[in-house]
Order: sequence, then structure tokens, then C-alpha cells
Amino acid sequence: MTQGVYYEDIEVGRIDRFGHYEVRREEVIDFASKYDPQPFHLDDEAAAQSHFGRLAASGWHTGAMSMAMMAKFFADVGYASMGGAGVDQLRWVKPVYPGDTLTMEIEVKAKRRSKSRPEMGLLDQHFAVRNQHGEVVMTYVATGMVAVREP
Amino acid sequence: MTQGVYYEDIEVGRIDRFGHYEVRREEVIDFASKYDPQPFHLDDEAAAQSHFGRLAASGWHTGAMSMAMMAKFFADVGYASMGGAGVDQLRWVKPVYPGDTLTMEIEVKAKRRSKSRPEMGLLDQHFAVRNQHGEVVMTYVATGMVAVREP
Repeated sequence: MTQGVYYEDIEVGRIDRFGHYEVRREEVIDFASKYDPQPFHLDDEAAAQSHFGRLAASGWHTGAMSMAMMAKFFADVGYASMGGAGVDQLRWVKPVYPGDTLTMEIEVKAKRRSKSRPEMGLLDQHFAVRNQHGEVVMTYVATGMVAVREP
Repeated sequence: MTQGVYYEDIEVGRIDRFGHYEVRREEVIDFASKYDPQPFHLDDEAAAQSHFGRLAASGWHTGAMSMAMMAKFFADVGYASMGGAGVDQLRWVKPVYPGDTLTMEIEVKAKRRSKSRPEMGLLDQHFAVRNQHGEVVMTYVATGMVAVREP
């Protein structure tokens, strides 16, 4: 049997919890400088006067950090991911601060074989990123593509 | 009159076109190394054998590049953006390759005043990122928050 996690192995209701991403201040500022140079992502004083209360990560940075946790998890367990074409209902629920440690959760809500590509299965997945207090900071849903072990 | 672009200035149907983001190979690899280390984002040979055909940017990187174009545009024209809480229907329509030059388009589909926050207006916006061939590479929709000039 091929090692790893394939379409056949994934039951509806499966929840994977993984990841341990330490949000570093330098990285928050570096990302924001390149991609989201709004004052509350760059500067303590400006952030203190904003709705964030203190320096907070760009929402796109949190998305990127969630991807980093997923890529590592997929590689670690041999998850036969074939990627995704997009995400829906992406919500930045709470701020992400330097010093936070993020973890991730993926729940499979439904699964079906692709009609056009026999080698591929489709998963309706709900994603949640949490901080060290267990608070959800970001959520989204997506249709994940995953390889079928025996097409 | 306060300078800049406020809620009152934005008509339904308004389209803003802006941005000029040159996608550099080093940056594609650097972003992917940190956040999306899948082979087709890192390595020419692996990418040649993938559905991308050649080295392609992470979808989260394209999202970040779109944010970079927006942040610059908002600053340049004094757009009184108050941010957003999420995005919907984010789709990576075509690959983004090193050497591409990206531009951006935002269309306002509807507008309304916030019921709970008199200083804020809400815009239903459609976003499209295009490459130098005019091909759409990424789309999403979002509810943008924008300041009201005279609450």
C-alpha cells in the first residue's frame, strides 16, 4: 500500500490539528514593509492608536503563515494534496500579534470524486487558525484537491 | 473640503485601475521558501513537470502582491480606507510567473452606510489582478470599509 494520506483514507468528519508557528516581530514588520505598509502593521505608536491596540500582522501574512503550517504538515504526513484553486469566506476574526503562537485545524465536511479527473478527489474543508489562547484568529473554507490512491 | 477619496466621492460603478508590480524570481523563491515550500514554487525542474509548466508564484504571494498595490494606491490618492474583515471567492485563475508585471482593478458594485458606525461606509468591491497580457490571474470580492467625510 502506498504510504501517506490519500482520498480513500480521508473520512468525512476527519479533523487534523497541527502546526506551531511563532509570530516574530521582525517578520511581521518585514512582511508588512513589503506587502502591507499600513502604519498599524509597522509602527508601535500608530498601532496603539488603531483598533488593533498594538502592532498586528497583516491579514495576508496570517494567510501565508497558515499556508506554511499546511505545507509542512502535508510533507510530514505524506498528505497527497494536489492544491486548491481558491478559498472562500476568508475572515480575519482577531488580530495576530508578535509573540503569538499559531496552530491550525482542518475539518473535512464532504468528499467526492472528480467527474473529469479520475485520479483526483475533492474535499470540502473548513480551516481555522488559532492563537496560544485557543482563540480563532482566521477562518476560511476551500475545496481541496487530493490524489486518489487507486484511480 | 477634506482632500482624498471618501465614501461620498465613490459612485457605484466606479472602477479604479492601478499598480505596476514586477514579479521577480528571487522574490517568488524567497516567499515560497518561507510560506509555501512546494517544489513548483521553488525549483525550475519540478515546476516544469507540474501543471504550472514553469516556476510559479504561491497563490498567497499573489494575494500579498495585490495588497501591496492597493496600499500604495490608497496612500497615493488619499483613499480613506478603513480596511476589511475578509475576502470571498478568492480564485487563482492563472499562474503568476517571474517576469510578469501585475496590475489591479477594483470595481464598486454597491455602497451603503454602516448602521452601527456613522463614520463608516461599506463598499461591495470586485478585485481583479491582471498580468502584462491583460489576462486575469486572480480575483476576489470583499466588503471594503471606507471613511465618511461628513458623518
